[in-house]
Amino acid sequence: MLKYSSPRTGKVVLVGAGPGDPDLLTVRAARALEAADVVLYDALVDARVLALAPRAAKFSVGKRAGAASVAQESINGIMIRTARSGRNVVRLKAGDPFVLGRGGEEVLALGAAGIEVEVVPGLSSALSGPLAAGIPVTHRGVAASFVVASAVPEERFVRLAERLPSKGTTLVVLMGLASRELIRDTLVRAGFSLDTPAAIVAGAHGPRAWHWSGTLGVLPEIQLPEDRADLPGIVVVGDVVEVGEAMRSHASFRVDDVELGMTKEEERRVLG
Amino acid sequence: MLKYSSPRTGKVVLVGAGPGDPDLLTVRAARALEAADVVLYDALVDARVLALAPRAAKFSVGKRAGAASVAQESINGIMIRTARSGRNVVRLKAGDPFVLGRGGEEVLALGAAGIEVEVVPGLSSALSGPLAAGIPVTHRGVAASFVVASAVPEERFVRLAERLPSKGTTLVVLMGLASRELIRDTLVRAGFSLDTPAAIVAGAHGPRAWHWSGTLGVLPEIQLPEDRADLPGIVVVGDVVEVGEAMRSHASFRVDDVELGMTKEEERRVLG
Repeated sequence: MLKYSSPRTGKVVLVGAGPGDPDLLTVRAARALEAADVVLYDALVDARVLALAPRAAKFSVGKRAGAASVAQESINGIMIRTARSGRNVVRLKAGDPFVLGRGGEEVLALGAAGIEVEVVPGLSSALSGPLAAGIPVTHRGVAASFVVASAVPEERFVRLAERLPSKGTTLVVLMGLASRELIRDTLVRAGFSLDTPAAIVAGAHGPRAWHWSGTLGVLPEIQLPEDRADLPGIVVVGDVVEVGEAMRSHASFRVDDVELGMTKEEERRVLG
Repeated sequence: MLKYSSPRTGKVVLVGAGPGDPDLLTVRAARALEAADVVLYDALVDARVLALAPRAAKFSVGKRAGAASVAQESINGIMIRTARSGRNVVRLKAGDPFVLGRGGEEVLALGAAGIEVEVVPGLSSALSGPLAAGIPVTHRGVAASFVVASAVPEERFVRLAERLPSKGTTLVVLMGLASRELIRDTLVRAGFSLDTPAAIVAGAHGPRAWHWSGTLGVLPEIQLPEDRADLPGIVVVGDVVEVGEAMRSHASFRVDDVELGMTKEEERRVLG
């Protein structure tokens, strides 16, 4: 392993905070937090996770869709200066830092500045999000593959989604709530039936988690409860959503220790 | 949450063991192992992870490509009978149980038998495998989506892969070593250039990890070292492989605490 550290330089540990519940951090991530002098964290990181770094100075550098945020270059600069001052920095990112988390950019910037970097992966919401609603991204005989995408940049999403086979694969769109109409329209163009099972998992990262499952046809029409409208959300499309319905009736999914969502009966009542 | 337990019935905790290193278990998984009476584990689970269940009786029910294994129905039966005897069972599966791990099937079988099930997700090799070689599955301006697939069943894989856009997305094929020719030929038919960056990550789950990166054109020709030929492997295709080369020169990737693979220089020497 290449090391760029000098005795007076701290290092940066890029840590994936997972889906929220501190018990779903990796053991290594928990240790890194405990040893941190400084923690730079994103907006979606749960307060209970931050509490695992009792002796660290903590700074929000949070990026969040639609809200003011610290520019990536500034975050890189803060990390570099803090590490150079001899402190051990944990850069704490929601989920896994390398799934739409710009972790790679941060590693490259730190490396170019000669700062030692260590990478600790975390549970990605791409998988733990659906699972929070009981939905396995693969299931034998149903889906042997899955696609994880951001709906932006839009043209890239469309280029991928408009060619997806309508059976046998699962589509997971991260931060997908605002793009539900685009998702439906693109998939319908690709030959997906309006009856294709679809789900929303909102706020799987936090204590107000909510989910819905139904069909692709009505996906854009679903209203999140008013008190959840601010939550980030994942859209899942594919037959595994129905497996999720069976799973929920059988197992307890303690992701974030909350009970999730509506039953199919409740949904029928709500949707009329 | 629905519970099916009676006072004399144990429960089953379905635990994802992650990529191998015990430090990359979740905190909750480590606790479940500590409390287990019985651990039923798969072939790919690392011995260091099993050591975290010192008081449990441990049984291999390992499935592994090409080797004799316990049928899924027998595994379900063993779990059900063991839980009914009042013991706390951990069903320990490599990676994440819901990424080609048949976790869903096990939950449904246990639920149908009235056994309480808890699910603890793990780091999937779909993400931590590439990252073990420094490869982020997404990277801004390079890939905003990724596809995770099994190469079997073959026709489903082909149906998905032959329509993938040749830029902007990353393909990760789990257990993909035996299917490298199919992967190359299908992607070339889809319009991928032979120069598309490609990588192999073998044995990211264990101490003999090895990786290679190069191009799609030569992917099927690459020989694993003789002493690694038995390792399970992941194939990654996409421009993020080149980001991985830059990442490796800058950061330490301690997945499994091993140094990984060949540099580009070494590769040139080996390939001539």
